[in-house]
Amino acid sequence: MRVVLEEESLRDGLQAENRLFSLTEKMEIVRLLAEAGVRRVQLGSFVSPRSVPQVANTDVLVSLVRRQYPDILCTALVLNEKGLERAARSGLGHLSMSASVSDSHSRTNTGRSTAEALEAMTGLITRAVAGGIRVRAGLQCAFGCAEEGVIAENTVLEAVARMVEAGAQEINLADTAGMAGPLQIKRLVGLVRTAHPQVELSLHCHDTWGMGLVNLYAGYEAGVRIFDVAAGGLGGCPCIEGAGGNVATEEALHLFNGMGIETGIDLGRYWQVVRHFETLLERRLPGRMRSLPREPGGTAAPRC
Amino acid sequence: MRVVLEEESLRDGLQAENRLFSLTEKMEIVRLLAEAGVRRVQLGSFVSPRSVPQVANTDVLVSLVRRQYPDILCTALVLNEKGLERAARSGLGHLSMSASVSDSHSRTNTGRSTAEALEAMTGLITRAVAGGIRVRAGLQCAFGCAEEGVIAENTVLEAVARMVEAGAQEINLADTAGMAGPLQIKRLVGLVRTAHPQVELSLHCHDTWGMGLVNLYAGYEAGVRIFDVAAGGLGGCPCIEGAGGNVATEEALHLFNGMGIETGIDLGRYWQVVRHFETLLERRLPGRMRSLPREPGGTAAPRC
Repeated sequence: MRVVLEEESLRDGLQAENRLFSLTEKMEIVRLLAEAGVRRVQLGSFVSPRSVPQVANTDVLVSLVRRQYPDILCTALVLNEKGLERAARSGLGHLSMSASVSDSHSRTNTGRSTAEALEAMTGLITRAVAGGIRVRAGLQCAFGCAEEGVIAENTVLEAVARMVEAGAQEINLADTAGMAGPLQIKRLVGLVRTAHPQVELSLHCHDTWGMGLVNLYAGYEAGVRIFDVAAGGLGGCPCIEGAGGNVATEEALHLFNGMGIETGIDLGRYWQVVRHFETLLERRLPGRMRSLPREPGGTAAPRC
Repeated sequence: MRVVLEEESLRDGLQAENRLFSLTEKMEIVRLLAEAGVRRVQLGSFVSPRSVPQVANTDVLVSLVRRQYPDILCTALVLNEKGLERAARSGLGHLSMSASVSDSHSRTNTGRSTAEALEAMTGLITRAVAGGIRVRAGLQCAFGCAEEGVIAENTVLEAVARMVEAGAQEINLADTAGMAGPLQIKRLVGLVRTAHPQVELSLHCHDTWGMGLVNLYAGYEAGVRIFDVAAGGLGGCPCIEGAGGNVATEEALHLFNGMGIETGIDLGRYWQVVRHFETLLERRLPGRMRSLPREPGGTAAPRC
């Protein structure tokens, strides 16, 4: 049995940081990711460099990584026409798109209603797929948002159906507000899988209140095999002081290793990625793992 | 459906701290715990105050809490004859005892082999039960230890059988070294429940590598209904720098609240316990929750 982890640190992660990472710094991180065995990386966003300077170098980064690491499935976020054109020029064969199923969240974040955002995404998906690009359609706030509470499952299912109809090959359910619990994950995942058994399903869990890894595990139990993760739990929401971000890649690896589930990623080598980010950002990342899990026969057992 | 959370902050938690808490300080914490609805608290250990000064005031604390909070099930740790005598004098009707099923860990920690430790615990249980005290028998390292790796399930099952035979009414499986994963939890819990359906089973998960809450959830799924937790994830192992301790009570509450499972504890009020510990210890506790989960209709949704 195999699980695919999509590394989000270079996009979702760095987008939440004030420090800008140079192309050279990002390439060094990609090198460490590749050496650890990571094979799917979201490299950035094709959005305005003025509004998100953290991802200004996405076009060049994508070209370099595609050339130097042919084994890595490169992906990036596209939110509009112009971004799609840039993505197509960069030669990317796989893209992420995203809209929020919470109307309030969608308006706050993008100034558009959910209906408008979904309509726009449908058009983008159609065009991308016609151009031979695989699309993953992300639904933000699929498990609720603070303003609207739990989003009706039918709202999510209708949005999923529209994205699939438009040609999306993968649906990404995102717990943007970190509001999901394991039972909710299992229920919604079950409904989507039953409605669209042919479509790949991935989960993007935010660890806002410590539930990230539990939700990821519940997603696995419900049949999901692609999960978004980020080194050290990078990401997080700038609106919530001290909030955790994505599920920490190293914790997901430790979980799956313990379950005997192959990820292709070596935890020991991946640990270098976490340390490297900590060095560059000059702080501890929010992930809970402070040292590599000990191997039997290693150091002394803790006294407790 | 109902779950019981046993609060470990005053024993397992404070034992890992250098700062000594006065009786008044402990009573203030008990007051906050009681107000939040906590109804089962491990108050300390009946061990030598010279070796563990953090719990030197256990006898008086137990008497005071029993008198002032008759609704709280008070418990404490007993490791030898002398401790049992002190516990009996304090009037406690419920005790925890503990031994390690990892021979190396047992020798490192107590200077005794597992066989010797289990033999001694059997004697203590028999005596306590004869005196009308309910005993919970804890098996440390039930899910492995760093020196010996995974402990054979038969070793654990044999130890469980001996404790049950001696009269223990509750078995506590402890992941002392934080090595368990959810599948291992489910498997061992299933085996113990099948072998001893009449015995109460509780779980003590350490969050050493971020797996605490996942393991607690897996335990719930496997049928466990009593879990050890500590405010802010207090506890932890002095041997592992930065390691998490127990599962944070507030995270367990958030998890069970989201699952619609009654704990009797109010998360909003419990939050005061976490903040109070942080004030006294003058640092952030390791738990991931940095603010109370927002209620729908509350503050603005995060932008992500």
